[in-house]
Amino acid sequence: MVVQTGFAASVATLQADDLVGEALSDPLLAGSLWVNVALMGFALLAFTYMGRTVTDEYAKLIVVATIAIPAVSIASYLALISGLTVGVVDIPGRGELVTLWGRYLTWTFSTPLILAALGLLAGTNFTKLFTAVVFDVAMCVTGLAAAMTSQALWLRWVWFALSTAFFLVVLAVILGSWSRDVESQDAAVQRLFGRLKYLTVVLWVGYPVVWAIGTEGLALFGTGIAGLAVTSWLYSLLDVGAKFVFAFLLVRFLAVEQPTVTRQGLGSEGAKPADD
Amino acid sequence: MVVQTGFAASVATLQADDLVGEALSDPLLAGSLWVNVALMGFALLAFTYMGRTVTDEYAKLIVVATIAIPAVSIASYLALISGLTVGVVDIPGRGELVTLWGRYLTWTFSTPLILAALGLLAGTNFTKLFTAVVFDVAMCVTGLAAAMTSQALWLRWVWFALSTAFFLVVLAVILGSWSRDVESQDAAVQRLFGRLKYLTVVLWVGYPVVWAIGTEGLALFGTGIAGLAVTSWLYSLLDVGAKFVFAFLLVRFLAVEQPTVTRQGLGSEGAKPADD
Amino acid sequence: MVVQTGFAASVATLQADDLVGEALSDPLLAGSLWVNVALMGFALLAFTYMGRTVTDEYAKLIVVATIAIPAVSIASYLALISGLTVGVVDIPGRGELVTLWGRYLTWTFSTPLILAALGLLAGTNFTKLFTAVVFDVAMCVTGLAAAMTSQALWLRWVWFALSTAFFLVVLAVILGSWSRDVESQDAAVQRLFGRLKYLTVVLWVGYPVVWAIGTEGLALFGTGIAGLAVTSWLYSLLDVGAKFVFAFLLVRFLAVEQPTVTRQGLGSEGAKPADD
Repeated sequence: MVVQTGFAASVATLQADDLVGEALSDPLLAGSLWVNVALMGFALLAFTYMGRTVTDEYAKLIVVATIAIPAVSIASYLALISGLTVGVVDIPGRGELVTLWGRYLTWTFSTPLILAALGLLAGTNFTKLFTAVVFDVAMCVTGLAAAMTSQALWLRWVWFALSTAFFLVVLAVILGSWSRDVESQDAAVQRLFGRLKYLTVVLWVGYPVVWAIGTEGLALFGTGIAGLAVTSWLYSLLDVGAKFVFAFLLVRFLAVEQPTVTRQGLGSEGAKPADD
Repeated sequence: MVVQTGFAASVATLQADDLVGEALSDPLLAGSLWVNVALMGFALLAFTYMGRTVTDEYAKLIVVATIAIPAVSIASYLALISGLTVGVVDIPGRGELVTLWGRYLTWTFSTPLILAALGLLAGTNFTKLFTAVVFDVAMCVTGLAAAMTSQALWLRWVWFALSTAFFLVVLAVILGSWSRDVESQDAAVQRLFGRLKYLTVVLWVGYPVVWAIGTEGLALFGTGIAGLAVTSWLYSLLDVGAKFVFAFLLVRFLAVEQPTVTRQGLGSEGAKPADD
Repeated sequence: MVVQTGFAASVATLQADDLVGEALSDPLLAGSLWVNVALMGFALLAFTYMGRTVTDEYAKLIVVATIAIPAVSIASYLALISGLTVGVVDIPGRGELVTLWGRYLTWTFSTPLILAALGLLAGTNFTKLFTAVVFDVAMCVTGLAAAMTSQALWLRWVWFALSTAFFLVVLAVILGSWSRDVESQDAAVQRLFGRLKYLTVVLWVGYPVVWAIGTEGLALFGTGIAGLAVTSWLYSLLDVGAKFVFAFLLVRFLAVEQPTVTRQGLGSEGAKPADD
């Protein structure tokens, strides 16, 4: 059962293992991971407690999607700490680079939850939510590919450009469609949506910026362990805002305000109440 | 294109291949896999035949979800037999351990189908089904991580604890929400749900127990091929109950009784018939 | 963090890397990949432009699913070009074989979108779409397993047979259920559905045929780079028809005709407007 994949192929394995082990035992880098394990563990418990008073089934759906965000996040950070989703990429002309590729993998699962929570709050319909989620997943998977690609440096930036293009579709849905959808909601929902929208858009723009200037990209902080730790801290801080603060504001609002969200149909004339 | 991942990193590859090949050619271990390929193959054909008389579209949805359970299972066991999803983990202080990690991977796909069938039978709504499935997938993925983690023994048990915590959410939905939801169904549906509920809860508790005492955990049967075969047989027998017996009871009921299941809306006031 | 998986296990890694690199730098093979990157990139832009005039939310859902097809495809071909999803399988009695396994992986994501677009056009319900998608994903994943399996040649054909069995379920839904569903639509939708149905069925049958006669199967064109390039071109041409032509016809129709599609409920008596 001998299969070599592009992912797996290597001879310099022992050395790679050393590099990964060395990186993960760096206190600054490890700190950037453990802090989010602790924070997201707290979030899981706190949000479950806060969300218990929500009674409306639709609001509960938003709460569950929101609570699942720190659940994915804690698993993501533990996987990095365990070294399960950390590897070494050997890029021509740059050398061996430790990559915490698990971040890009788990964003595939956490970011659709953030979009689901945001879109459901706006009372959007299935078509617009589907659009946002499909291009969001495409954005994350191509981001993962960017980090994994070692054949040539320019190919990494092709992936980056493709990922960014998909990101623009997500931004268009948030800033365009959903901002219009939310106008039929009451004032409190509109205010919260506006706040969460700007939080999300500003911080999400931060991720590709960190990618571009961090170890995966231009490596402005160097490609050594110090640069890796700085990059990791930047991502971790973005995660605190885009996941923890986002989820906290949303769950608190739903628990305190018990809002009613008006939802849209799929809009086809002649359509029966939909099951799809 | 040289990438080393945590998954792939190793020098003792030839030796690992020998270990996997040796394990898979053990008759006792191989038997624990082939018996389920045969059983699930029979199930696929039998359930498709049994389910052909179901006419109600909602009941058909339950039948399809149920038939998909042995479909995933047969692929899961063939992947183990093919060695595609079998590997070797080198745990500090314990040595090299053959792991049939494909089991944990494919549960990610089969267990949501079981929950979908059970929840749809109870007539539950999207929010509760979403809750069960999200935390079920989180449980399976963290279980996979537990089996893969080799950095330290204690980290494997951190994963195990996290996976068990997610399992508690799934249990709460089954034993709490769905047991209340099913009360609005007719008596025959209630009886079947009660039976399937206890079958599922009891057997699903068995899986983490086998993990804890089997080769991945405390290794009460040893870490050699004999211990591996015993552990594999225990999982295979649990699968027979939790997948084959579960699916058989459900498909037979739907085909014979042709029940009508009353379904809940999402409950938001002001909601139009939903598309999301 | 030393884990050896079936996927990863190998010592002949450097040699494998050479094989992959050699294959990917073959102009004929590389051409079969780049041509689809270019075509699908053009498709993404063109379909987005063409689809902008669609106003009905249900028709928009079909457009988004359709536009996502070239989005997945462009990422799939870039991943092959990057060598991320290309590997070497060492099959007993046949030797080392370069495999572009990423094709089978990404079909798992692109083919459900094709089925979603086709089923939504027919106005089918959730049960039938769920059936088609579940068995389609099972078909793709077992096809991936077929390409990855190196333990024995006959095991590859067991996977192939299983994958083909799942394919028959998909065909039954398209040719049976959906062909009946579409009869309640207006004449223009029926005509387009008929055309897309035959395009899909004929071309989709081509994929297992190419697998069977190509490098993964009987290797009628040899197992060298020339055989690989011929096989890759056959797949690429099938993709042009089954993805680009399919999507072009569908988006153009929706943009020009602005049709109204009548949708079915889940059909359970006593059901409230559904949320699941």
